[in-house]
Amino acid sequence: MQELRKDPIVGRWVIIAPERLTRPQNVSDADELSTTSFDPFLEGHEDATTPEIMAYRNSGEANEPGWRVRVIPNKFPAVTVEGQLDKRGVGIYDMMNGIGAHEVIVECPHREQNMSRLSVENIREVFWVYHDRLVDLKRDTRLVHGLIFKNKGARAGASLDHSHSQLIVSPIVPITIQEELDGAEKFYKYRGRSIFSDMIQQELATGERIVMETEHFVVMCPYASRFPFETWIVPRQQASHFETATQAVVEDLGTVMKSILTKMELGLDDPPYNYVLHTAPFSSPNLPHFRWHIELFPRLSRVAGFEWGSGFYINTVPPEEAAQFLRGTELTFT
Amino acid sequence: MQELRKDPIVGRWVIIAPERLTRPQNVSDADELSTTSFDPFLEGHEDATTPEIMAYRNSGEANEPGWRVRVIPNKFPAVTVEGQLDKRGVGIYDMMNGIGAHEVIVECPHREQNMSRLSVENIREVFWVYHDRLVDLKRDTRLVHGLIFKNKGARAGASLDHSHSQLIVSPIVPITIQEELDGAEKFYKYRGRSIFSDMIQQELATGERIVMETEHFVVMCPYASRFPFETWIVPRQQASHFETATQAVVEDLGTVMKSILTKMELGLDDPPYNYVLHTAPFSSPNLPHFRWHIELFPRLSRVAGFEWGSGFYINTVPPEEAAQFLRGTELTFT
Repeated sequence: MQELRKDPIVGRWVIIAPERLTRPQNVSDADELSTTSFDPFLEGHEDATTPEIMAYRNSGEANEPGWRVRVIPNKFPAVTVEGQLDKRGVGIYDMMNGIGAHEVIVECPHREQNMSRLSVENIREVFWVYHDRLVDLKRDTRLVHGLIFKNKGARAGASLDHSHSQLIVSPIVPITIQEELDGAEKFYKYRGRSIFSDMIQQELATGERIVMETEHFVVMCPYASRFPFETWIVPRQQASHFETATQAVVEDLGTVMKSILTKMELGLDDPPYNYVLHTAPFSSPNLPHFRWHIELFPRLSRVAGFEWGSGFYINTVPPEEAAQFLRGTELTFT
Repeated sequence: MQELRKDPIVGRWVIIAPERLTRPQNVSDADELSTTSFDPFLEGHEDATTPEIMAYRNSGEANEPGWRVRVIPNKFPAVTVEGQLDKRGVGIYDMMNGIGAHEVIVECPHREQNMSRLSVENIREVFWVYHDRLVDLKRDTRLVHGLIFKNKGARAGASLDHSHSQLIVSPIVPITIQEELDGAEKFYKYRGRSIFSDMIQQELATGERIVMETEHFVVMCPYASRFPFETWIVPRQQASHFETATQAVVEDLGTVMKSILTKMELGLDDPPYNYVLHTAPFSSPNLPHFRWHIELFPRLSRVAGFEWGSGFYINTVPPEEAAQFLRGTELTFT
């Protein structure tokens, strides 16, 4: 059984999931993913995956061809749906059972590696699926937060090349999200304003770290970027929970993601990347101080060293230069 | 000029150091470090490095052969010694100049890749050098904290194979250290005890996560380990600042590091690894709630994915199993 364990010093929850050891051994050692091996995510290979949770379909029944975007349980889940939380102390430590949902969003029926090469309509549907899954899983009162992320490319942690993202809904709030909630609340209490609103206002005023703007979004390289070409996609309007996004916002987000991912593919030589959707916990009301957003990290350097253990980052590309470069990268798909 | 910039949401300081781009281009792309290329850290090659800051010597003058452990400025520094902090606001953001010291500790005069293969006496001297550098740099009132770390192996971020570690002394406290200070202080205020003391007491009582014990240290895989075989080296006696360690403690630490690094070399097939020395800021008095310690991470999996952006770790090796394995790995050097 998986366990959630809390670090007693900083309060960080960690998943201890020995079951995942049964994953294919070569997952973490390949530099490039095979594009010719059997693809379990391909349309027609539905019987090679766990039974689907949902799909947007043109035709067919569940687990048959005819889908456009498909959601399945992760075959090697970090958390599992069945059971009780059974929160308990182990001496001075806090733990609970690893209850939750770990799902895979297969983003397209054909074998495509990079979300950037999906159609805008396809990308919009991926974000609609995120939305729908969060709305659905929110009803499970054992669960507190939904973390949606993508590992693209072997060097960003992916084990299959077919474009997909993942969702881990768990009974805890990941520490990075918690720290953002705490920091943003402190700012709000002190100044009576949202730090996200202040940040966007200043970024738009100077423009030097802006990559692009649309009706609903500001795309920028943050002032204190940890990584070269780190990019944030932030909605203009206040909203703490992604699952409350309106249709106009989700549609616009599809356009924005297509654009920025295409810019990175063209400008940075199709890099591996991760993105993480930062959204408020299910259990919190609409928060005036926190804003959902997406943090996108191209993985341009293969290695990381002491930054892992210290949280002290050295970034060799100033965000002003990164933004200027990405602004200047022409889009060919429009 | 390098800059230190603060993330306005979570308060994390980041170094923006474009000068480091002049580092050899292949640094981050090699999987293995060359063991036959020119070694600037080798005894006799002193003129290939920046002029030394200090050395423990058997003979010779500065920048001549005859040294045992040698400290030089990093050739591609993330921060620089000269200049003023010039702390200022940039609209809503906080920044200061990238003032500080970035030094390299060359751990031995001969070409050896792994600290585990240095003699115990040699390792002790490396830790004495850490001690001496912190004591010296502490006198610079512009500087607030000293971060000492090691990247061993290309996949852990090293760019040269000759065993070395690094020191970054800067005018800010790295966020991971700050979070530990905050968490430990909260625990102390609430319970009147040190979390480090409680943790060690419980670990010694159950023994299941203990790797080894000596007169002055407890070596354990922490309850909420983020990574497989994550290992902490914690002193038994309360001390917040490493630079206050007594001779007996530093000598014992040499033995402990030789042992645990040898266990990892033998048991885990000579893995790349990082360690980070966590110590309290120069500017704080002796703290009853925080204890200096070393966090050691073998890098068994080549990649990391969304964990980077979310702080949500999935660990496939329970610390109890990791500790049992490391306990059982026989040492051959004694």
